[in-house]
Amino acid sequence: MKYFKYMMVTLFMTLLPVSCTSQKKEDKIDETSKMMVRIAEVEIEPEYLDEYIEILKEESAASVKLEKGVISIFPMFQKNSKTSIRILEIYANHAAYELHLKTPHFIKYKTSTVKMVKGLKLIDMYAIDSNNMPEIFSKLDEH
Amino acid sequence: MKYFKYMMVTLFMTLLPVSCTSQKKEDKIDETSKMMVRIAEVEIEPEYLDEYIEILKEESAASVKLEKGVISIFPMFQKNSKTSIRILEIYANHAAYELHLKTPHFIKYKTSTVKMVKGLKLIDMYAIDSNNMPEIFSKLDEH
Repeated sequence: MKYFKYMMVTLFMTLLPVSCTSQKKEDKIDETSKMMVRIAEVEIEPEYLDEYIEILKEESAASVKLEKGVISIFPMFQKNSKTSIRILEIYANHAAYELHLKTPHFIKYKTSTVKMVKGLKLIDMYAIDSNNMPEIFSKLDEH
Repeated sequence: MKYFKYMMVTLFMTLLPVSCTSQKKEDKIDETSKMMVRIAEVEIEPEYLDEYIEILKEESAASVKLEKGVISIFPMFQKNSKTSIRILEIYANHAAYELHLKTPHFIKYKTSTVKMVKGLKLIDMYAIDSNNMPEIFSKLDEH
């Protein structure tokens, strides 16, 4: 009987971490599948390009730094057309995006760039491999 | 004289970590500015969509896992047009991209999807705030 009890405790101690890891992984998958992913295509009036870029840099840095629900705002411009801006945006979920729209830094960006933006397309996306998103971007830390 | 020597050693010990950190940061900025960033716009023949997505998932996961120079391959599809695939690709530098083209997993992807792809545009991009790229994507680890 004593031996049986010992075996049961050992079995429990062995299975506990496996079950916790598996639960953690499921939570992670659940969270990443709620993420809102978007590509913003923004066309800028050439005479405002430098000014716009400064405002966008400030806004995107503030959003990632201050807002828990803004996972990433990654702004780029096209090599052969600098006035064609593309922004990869990742929010934790739709509520986080709604909150983002009400922040002072977003409102400042939006109002101060109205005259600079001549075209804007917001394209909602799905991540094809959302379960592996942390791994997909983890190497940036090494660079 | 002994006091002076002591002061100099203390000063050196104080400044050493600062100078190392600053050097490390400069190296990091230098490395991120060499990165090659691209958005691939791929249009898929509808009848091959599921098959294409499986091949793409396998290829992008293998690239990030096996190739040091592939920083990220992030595949997405448009919410309102699932056959419109967008892939954000980040390579450490141009040489890393050239190596990627010669890997067995890329060659397998390229040859097996030829008949599935009806349109392909490769758009070279610059990161607007390349110095902050690790910070931009660091929150994915928390999700």
